[in-house]
Amino acid sequence: MIVVLTGGTGGAKFVQGLAALVPARELTVIVNTGDDLTWWGLHVSPDLDSITYALAGILSRERGWGVEADTFHCLEAMCRMGAPAWFQLGDRDLATHLRRTELLSENKTLSEATSQIARGFGIETRILPMTDDRVETRVLTADGELSFQEYFVRERYQVAARGVRFEGAERAQAAPGVLQAIAHAEIVVIAPSNPITSTGPILAVPGIRQALKETMAPVAAISPIIGGAAVSGPAGELMQTQGLAVSIAGVVRCYADFLDLLVADERDSALGTPVEGIAVRYTSTVMKSEADKTALAR
Amino acid sequence: MIVVLTGGTGGAKFVQGLAALVPARELTVIVNTGDDLTWWGLHVSPDLDSITYALAGILSRERGWGVEADTFHCLEAMCRMGAPAWFQLGDRDLATHLRRTELLSENKTLSEATSQIARGFGIETRILPMTDDRVETRVLTADGELSFQEYFVRERYQVAARGVRFEGAERAQAAPGVLQAIAHAEIVVIAPSNPITSTGPILAVPGIRQALKETMAPVAAISPIIGGAAVSGPAGELMQTQGLAVSIAGVVRCYADFLDLLVADERDSALGTPVEGIAVRYTSTVMKSEADKTALAR
Repeated sequence: MIVVLTGGTGGAKFVQGLAALVPARELTVIVNTGDDLTWWGLHVSPDLDSITYALAGILSRERGWGVEADTFHCLEAMCRMGAPAWFQLGDRDLATHLRRTELLSENKTLSEATSQIARGFGIETRILPMTDDRVETRVLTADGELSFQEYFVRERYQVAARGVRFEGAERAQAAPGVLQAIAHAEIVVIAPSNPITSTGPILAVPGIRQALKETMAPVAAISPIIGGAAVSGPAGELMQTQGLAVSIAGVVRCYADFLDLLVADERDSALGTPVEGIAVRYTSTVMKSEADKTALAR
Repeated sequence: MIVVLTGGTGGAKFVQGLAALVPARELTVIVNTGDDLTWWGLHVSPDLDSITYALAGILSRERGWGVEADTFHCLEAMCRMGAPAWFQLGDRDLATHLRRTELLSENKTLSEATSQIARGFGIETRILPMTDDRVETRVLTADGELSFQEYFVRERYQVAARGVRFEGAERAQAAPGVLQAIAHAEIVVIAPSNPITSTGPILAVPGIRQALKETMAPVAAISPIIGGAAVSGPAGELMQTQGLAVSIAGVVRCYADFLDLLVADERDSALGTPVEGIAVRYTSTVMKSEADKTALAR
């Protein structure tokens, strides 16, 4: 069993690559839920959705989120009614949030809702939220705290971040199957996701970091940093708020206590091994085509 | 002030005709909510929606419900996920239900939600739900009770109805403004709606029938029955379950205690005045074109 820890668009692309190589039932994906939000009264789980759509083969290539070729007629109608519209939900995408919200209102857990939605898409790979409890990534700015989506989507990460915290993480429990999946994995892979706000919330759930330390499986991470910058998104800025170098050395520091192998971009090979005892393998980590995704996953 | 009591598609067409003749602020529309349902976790008010869309000029002419030229991409995605899909919500239509559900979850009343949604559409006419309380039209059949939408949409009224009851009606209060609007009207018009399940629930709300008896305004009703049959829908069958003739005489019996004038179709003129003391005016009551609607309203 290959176990992937993931969040964000880079993670979804990587999981697509893996899914093309590995039988669906031999893959378990553990997903960040710190970005979840209530929007138009619906429970939206952006990272769970991206993985679900990626595995269903309907993730929008153009946008990197939502459903391929989706329409936005409901959103346009919401705008005309004066509803907030900075967070965009497509019409087909809406079905997922309606279904999830309804299942949660029937007292199903987020794990159960996720698995029921995945079955609806014919997905055989196991998709696990990191927790069934509410953990909310909060970004600290000079003007107060923002939810991750307020920071990332509404403000397009143009406000200066001073730090990040994971509201509710200390009381959260890993979702059913998460610790066991890590313990019994053949290999654990940390996707090329933002180490602060995509994999950071997962590692903040009590027990998960410890499970990564204890597992017999090798743990590999793919760097989301190439040279001195994130491939996309605010990973660089957010790493700096934690006193981390925006480099593969900074990535390794996030995972040093359990990491066996870092997969970094060949453009970083001149830097040498950043931390003793952690192997580094250099390859091309940029995922533009389907071939790029599978090559990186391989 | 012209006050209309309405429900269903015939009522929405008639209100469109009236709205073309009367200044928006001189019209108050009191709407059946007995058909309301929770669908995909959303509070759907089919009759309020039809009136809202009619007054916004976006009611689908082809379907008679929902938004003109709407798409059904969310519905299709729901179907693929195995969700029930016999009740159809278009993508633009969904925005209304999302907004209403969110407002209700913020402890707004149905009246407040209705008025806020109407403002969002730029509607100046006052749209009042009959009540802010839950009243549910239940159709009794040999196999048990159905909600109105189960009977009307899911079963296409092909199951034999034995009767109708309005769950919760005896405890319901007329929504703010309803009794006052009737009391201070210049004229009250009962739209050509199903007298059992469209105007029936309105009249079942305590105080409304009494207000119609007491108002100084003349009360007119437009017959939804032409000859021996309903213009559309199950009005005929449902009238029979109440021991009513499927005729203008049957319609008059529903409203006899407060009615001053029945507007009936010219094809029924041979029948003569069905009840003493109630005037009958014959005209064409079929509304196919916009001109038909305004002619009937005039």
